[in-house]
Amino acid sequence: MRDAYHEQLDAVNGRLVGMTRKAGEQIQLATRALLGAELDAAEKTVAGDAVINRDRHEVDEQVIEVMATQGPVARDLRVVTAALRITADIERMGDLAVHVAKIARMRYPDHAVPEELRSTFASMGTTAVEMADKAGQVISTRDVQTAAQLAHDDNEMDHLHRSLFLVLLDDDWDRGVEAAVDIALLGRYYERFADHAVEIAGHVRYLVTGELQ
Amino acid sequence: MRDAYHEQLDAVNGRLVGMTRKAGEQIQLATRALLGAELDAAEKTVAGDAVINRDRHEVDEQVIEVMATQGPVARDLRVVTAALRITADIERMGDLAVHVAKIARMRYPDHAVPEELRSTFASMGTTAVEMADKAGQVISTRDVQTAAQLAHDDNEMDHLHRSLFLVLLDDDWDRGVEAAVDIALLGRYYERFADHAVEIAGHVRYLVTGELQ
Repeated sequence: MRDAYHEQLDAVNGRLVGMTRKAGEQIQLATRALLGAELDAAEKTVAGDAVINRDRHEVDEQVIEVMATQGPVARDLRVVTAALRITADIERMGDLAVHVAKIARMRYPDHAVPEELRSTFASMGTTAVEMADKAGQVISTRDVQTAAQLAHDDNEMDHLHRSLFLVLLDDDWDRGVEAAVDIALLGRYYERFADHAVEIAGHVRYLVTGELQ
Repeated sequence: MRDAYHEQLDAVNGRLVGMTRKAGEQIQLATRALLGAELDAAEKTVAGDAVINRDRHEVDEQVIEVMATQGPVARDLRVVTAALRITADIERMGDLAVHVAKIARMRYPDHAVPEELRSTFASMGTTAVEMADKAGQVISTRDVQTAAQLAHDDNEMDHLHRSLFLVLLDDDWDRGVEAAVDIALLGRYYERFADHAVEIAGHVRYLVTGELQ
């Protein structure tokens, strides 16, 4: 049987996994809003961010409570400091999903993304959801192989991100400046979302190895 | 006389202040690279980021050492958890300065920013440097008034940021898509730099009041 202390740490871990799942749902919803010009999905994404913010607040308080009452050292100390870093990353992932949703909302009933780029953003959305889920798996299993997969997915995201600029900056681009600016910012939001998933894996690696990145 | 423990915390605080100063220097240098199309300043910014990254690493290790050996509680615990959050923000400020410098470098010997927008970016640069310095002051003095000034500066930055879009999206814009995309991204980098300075003040507020934001 585990002692109360380690049960507290397990509870924190479980909440972190739940938060990554929620971040994945948020970017999925935001992507739907973006690709379908769905106002309802955009509004739901914006409203849903409060859940992640509340979770971050509660989990941080739980972690600080463990620190105060248990005075963790060595590996347990790494677990709690990593948890504080992970909540910060997930909160930011939620913010980025909101940024995507707000561009969809701003352009509604038009599409922010012209037809020829929708499949690229669909792939970015799918990759982002998978990366959030894998970040959750890394937290849950502490499996280094899943962490390696995240680095691979991040390369895929970078590739998709770069491919946007090839289209935007081509002489044939005829969608105007506003669409180009939207797409540049949207590309950045997805890329940053992915970066945070990779950073989460880095925090878990630190927790396991004791090496700061 | 202060005990060794509080001397350790003071030392951490001093290093945090030094890191904010360095972040301010980096965004100043990046802005010079941008406005003057100065390759040398751009390269120096990129190279200088390693100092902030190293500092973050070292300060984080110092903080975790304090946690492990002293088992801080109450306010001291808030000091150390706030320190870990602050180093993360400053590291990110450094990254954003590098992003600005890299756009300057990519467009060299051309200017990334057309003449009519240079004064706006000059103001964004000045505001960013001031905000980094004020974040340092807030860390050093824990003065809530300086924190209020930061919120004011952040409004100024948001105003400058929005003013860019008015120019970009005006029918008279004749600088093309590439310049528009550069400017949209640059605007975002300065705005995020400012956000992190505000977040640092928030971490200090938490440290003083015990209230998570």
